[in-house]
Amino acid sequence: MKLYSYFRSSASYRVRIALNLKNLSYEYVPVHLVRDGGEQLKSAYRQVNPDAIVPAFVDDEGHTLQQSLAIIEYLEEMHPEPPLLPKSPADRAHVRSLALQVACEIHPVDNLRVLKYLKHTVGADDATKDAWYRHWIEAGFATLEQRLAGDSRTGKLSFGDTPTIADLCIVPQVYNANRFKIDTTRYPTIQRINDYALTLDAFARAAPGVQPDSE
Amino acid sequence: MKLYSYFRSSASYRVRIALNLKNLSYEYVPVHLVRDGGEQLKSAYRQVNPDAIVPAFVDDEGHTLQQSLAIIEYLEEMHPEPPLLPKSPADRAHVRSLALQVACEIHPVDNLRVLKYLKHTVGADDATKDAWYRHWIEAGFATLEQRLAGDSRTGKLSFGDTPTIADLCIVPQVYNANRFKIDTTRYPTIQRINDYALTLDAFARAAPGVQPDSE
Repeated sequence: MKLYSYFRSSASYRVRIALNLKNLSYEYVPVHLVRDGGEQLKSAYRQVNPDAIVPAFVDDEGHTLQQSLAIIEYLEEMHPEPPLLPKSPADRAHVRSLALQVACEIHPVDNLRVLKYLKHTVGADDATKDAWYRHWIEAGFATLEQRLAGDSRTGKLSFGDTPTIADLCIVPQVYNANRFKIDTTRYPTIQRINDYALTLDAFARAAPGVQPDSE
Repeated sequence: MKLYSYFRSSASYRVRIALNLKNLSYEYVPVHLVRDGGEQLKSAYRQVNPDAIVPAFVDDEGHTLQQSLAIIEYLEEMHPEPPLLPKSPADRAHVRSLALQVACEIHPVDNLRVLKYLKHTVGADDATKDAWYRHWIEAGFATLEQRLAGDSRTGKLSFGDTPTIADLCIVPQVYNANRFKIDTTRYPTIQRINDYALTLDAFARAAPGVQPDSE
């Protein structure tokens, strides 16, 4: 198994946590998103993933998979233990919706290529671009906090006390928030979940700072 | 069952198709995203969905679910026939990744609240906003076309000849592209899939133009 990854990419970070939780070893293939205008845009990588984003995952049979949540659902189906989704369909929908709230409502709007377009095509200055980045995290975290704090299923983590795909999305997004110095103490449940998750080995080993391509 | 929906919302449109394919009847609750500054932003709707977006879905047991793809996976688990995902994990990952490419890479960046922020906070004029909208559809469709055209699993629809969650995401996105007069003949596989899907009753009945709140 092979993971095309960039240490800071939060979508890659999600998959790294899943692989660690499932106790799967894999080859780490770094794709530098910034150097030389971005290795993800070169034809070598576009042959792996035409969408020119990380991660991409190659399984033992040579299937190339893309989109972090599709990869994680695949890992869940192929390697069910430990489960990253609860048992009942309603609970599974709850956990998936928490994950998707990060993956669809926050992360894409702050994606590198969106920020580049905002700067170079729309002509936004750096202050406007940084405010944009913070705005979508803050708006998304405010409702995510409300949902997590108001739900009896929330435990030490987003759903009970063991990791689910919701935590796999939340922790990398908190990493991004911290990079941009967002005051996450305003989201105490998110903060608490993040802090607890990072005490777990699978999360700690997936962190950007300890990846082979970390700078 | 109840679906909080707006006729033009493509995330609502996805769920409407799924409900029709599963042959489930439901109460349609319109949430007007534009009138009076947006009904989704009022406290009545925020109590249903704190994230203030449509759709929201209330199942027979009173669970409120959000995020279109989480709702669709829930319907798939509760009502497995006809299946909207293939059988093998690798094929399921392929279909999910096509769906997520629309749901994560195209749709969120063109979401109404993002366009509003672009206009009112960044200060972009209408031409810049419209170019933004088109850019993300065109960039996303270009790679989606490449993936679909180059994959032997593509049939009359995105995966073989029967509907999957990939089609549920693609058809509403083509509807958006048409509204903005994007030349979709440049994406012949997407165009062909869309045209075939719209001949199917479940897709036709889910179309924006035939919803109770259609204008």
